[in-house]
Amino acid sequence: MDPGTGSRGVSPAAMAVAAVLPAGGSGERLGGATPKQFCAVQGRPLVSFAVRAMERINWISDIIVVVSPENVETMKSIIEKYGHKRVTIVKGGITRHRSIFNGLKVFAENQFSNYLLQKPEVVIIHDAVRPFVEEDILSKVVMAAKEHGAAGAIRPLVSTVIASAPDGFLDHSLERAKYRASEMPQAFLFDIIYQAYQQCTDYDLDYGTECLHLALKYCKTNAKLVEGTADLWKVTYKRDLYAAESIIKDSLSQQVCVIADVKEAVAQVGFRLHESLKSQIEVEAISISLSKNDSHLQNDFSGECCNFVCINDKKYDIGETQQLVDMLEKSNIPLLYPVVLILVHLDSSESVSFSIGVEELTRIKKFASEVKKKNILVYGLLIQYK
Amino acid sequence: MDPGTGSRGVSPAAMAVAAVLPAGGSGERLGGATPKQFCAVQGRPLVSFAVRAMERINWISDIIVVVSPENVETMKSIIEKYGHKRVTIVKGGITRHRSIFNGLKVFAENQFSNYLLQKPEVVIIHDAVRPFVEEDILSKVVMAAKEHGAAGAIRPLVSTVIASAPDGFLDHSLERAKYRASEMPQAFLFDIIYQAYQQCTDYDLDYGTECLHLALKYCKTNAKLVEGTADLWKVTYKRDLYAAESIIKDSLSQQVCVIADVKEAVAQVGFRLHESLKSQIEVEAISISLSKNDSHLQNDFSGECCNFVCINDKKYDIGETQQLVDMLEKSNIPLLYPVVLILVHLDSSESVSFSIGVEELTRIKKFASEVKKKNILVYGLLIQYK
Repeated sequence: MDPGTGSRGVSPAAMAVAAVLPAGGSGERLGGATPKQFCAVQGRPLVSFAVRAMERINWISDIIVVVSPENVETMKSIIEKYGHKRVTIVKGGITRHRSIFNGLKVFAENQFSNYLLQKPEVVIIHDAVRPFVEEDILSKVVMAAKEHGAAGAIRPLVSTVIASAPDGFLDHSLERAKYRASEMPQAFLFDIIYQAYQQCTDYDLDYGTECLHLALKYCKTNAKLVEGTADLWKVTYKRDLYAAESIIKDSLSQQVCVIADVKEAVAQVGFRLHESLKSQIEVEAISISLSKNDSHLQNDFSGECCNFVCINDKKYDIGETQQLVDMLEKSNIPLLYPVVLILVHLDSSESVSFSIGVEELTRIKKFASEVKKKNILVYGLLIQYK
Repeated sequence: MDPGTGSRGVSPAAMAVAAVLPAGGSGERLGGATPKQFCAVQGRPLVSFAVRAMERINWISDIIVVVSPENVETMKSIIEKYGHKRVTIVKGGITRHRSIFNGLKVFAENQFSNYLLQKPEVVIIHDAVRPFVEEDILSKVVMAAKEHGAAGAIRPLVSTVIASAPDGFLDHSLERAKYRASEMPQAFLFDIIYQAYQQCTDYDLDYGTECLHLALKYCKTNAKLVEGTADLWKVTYKRDLYAAESIIKDSLSQQVCVIADVKEAVAQVGFRLHESLKSQIEVEAISISLSKNDSHLQNDFSGECCNFVCINDKKYDIGETQQLVDMLEKSNIPLLYPVVLILVHLDSSESVSFSIGVEELTRIKKFASEVKKKNILVYGLLIQYK
């Protein structure tokens, strides 16, 4: 049994979980004027990706984003622009630890705000500059924190770590296998991490950076270490922004959503596409009538950017596709990378001739050339079968 | 005085220096079948960038690339394709240390090859998967190694380093400020590092990775640590390949070379361009007649990819530009990113009318549209002055 997921098979959904995202850094290592959490990747600030990673998980009730006082307005506009939900902005302190402490206070004191949020059982702490955190690792650290009081994601060291003597010479090098890089997310029983911050010295608040260290020092809680995946890395340098951009582009091109108004069609096509592409592409299949302007679909894509296969076995109606394009636009998804929209018209009529007439083809072509300006590529496909 | 550059102001050019590039890794962390050193970035294998970084420094006499036996042919073809010079291929062992040891043996034994290269005073060890090493840091570690026996580049830690207990719980975290990441390049007095490898145990050869550690353990040499720049990082994960690609694209677009057949023009224009663009773009200026098919120019660009400003105050001759395009093609530079070629025709004649006739303009246009297929963008500019 995987020790990281807890020993009683309980899911994180059964407890109150909140997340604190410290986003107060100055980004000086990035070499730019904009703090890295506000740097745009595919047209969208990094912090928005991290918030999205949290809000798409339904068992996280509150997301606290801690920003420096001068960035409160920036953060507000990001939340509005991208329609983020369940987010509370808190003003940070002058160091990382002071910022996280302020974030936690929202659940325990009403010194900083007029509201007092429901205290969670477990709190996740995650950096705003780590945009690629998956539900799996969040679930693992939360379950391990519930059981052991504290937990954190770790990764193997990439470089050997050495201790230098004060004169600038090598003192000794550490045996790489015995050490790990401490990454995020981390999770804590709220009472443990809050108590640690309350007791912690000014020196720790000003010079420390590691929450696991505080839990150990002040609450004698040895955190459970959970092996994370390579995508947990922190955006630190400019090259990391480049990497993040490429990863996002890659993942955009590796998702496809099958939509159809006929249940059987979506089940069949969705299943077959998934079977043949599962190692290369993520396939989602929904049976839905676009013309009903279904809010389920709208919610489903508010945070993700997919490619679409729309299957239709009735008379082809361009209005439905227009609806989908409108939804994509409204969702504020950064469409720098083309979204591919494939319209499949299934024709089971006896007639061998094309049932989509020249006039309709012309309309599709015109429509395709219009939406191409919005970086959406429309292709039509007619499948005849008996 | 910067302690990293040595205390007597001697340059590395005054001594015999060689470089060993271990390139035998399997690249399993990258998640692909191709070892990372052979992964293409902008169409060119990573190892070729590292070799180029060494060969453009004229005080490095020999470059030893150590590859696993099954990749010797691949490496040979890379050297041929990109015209690398001063490179010797050596078969690696089953671990990093064994590979480096094999590389060093080329200077001391003729067990592995028929040739015995001239033993260098200082040897640089640098990873084939660190493509962005600059002369400055190489010079610093070489000078420090000459003075202190061993030296290595270091970087601040990005993540906190923790020690885990055998049961998978946090044991303690290290105070980040006291530790550094040990990076490459490193440099050693040849006799010291070779002696360390000769005395070193099988355990060290099989499980160790850190050359600085061997020098300390077997030769009591505390390496001088030299603070490196952020671009020294090692390509480890797929995201690092993305980052490398973007960095190379960036640097390609930030170099310009001014070429002219008139000494005064190149001096003036080169100087002015450099003055106004020095913070954004690297400006090189050469006075040369392209029509002479000068081998100096050819060598100069065999490894670099620049944009060009060609200044001409005589009758415009398209043949010269064709020559430059041919050179670019022959140089096997990966031209995925457009090379910009600006032809400047200086006209000091009294006539106010354009001295380039319609016919000539048509020829330039035609030429430009032809070379555009080769990803070279040609622009013409006529400057009239009195």
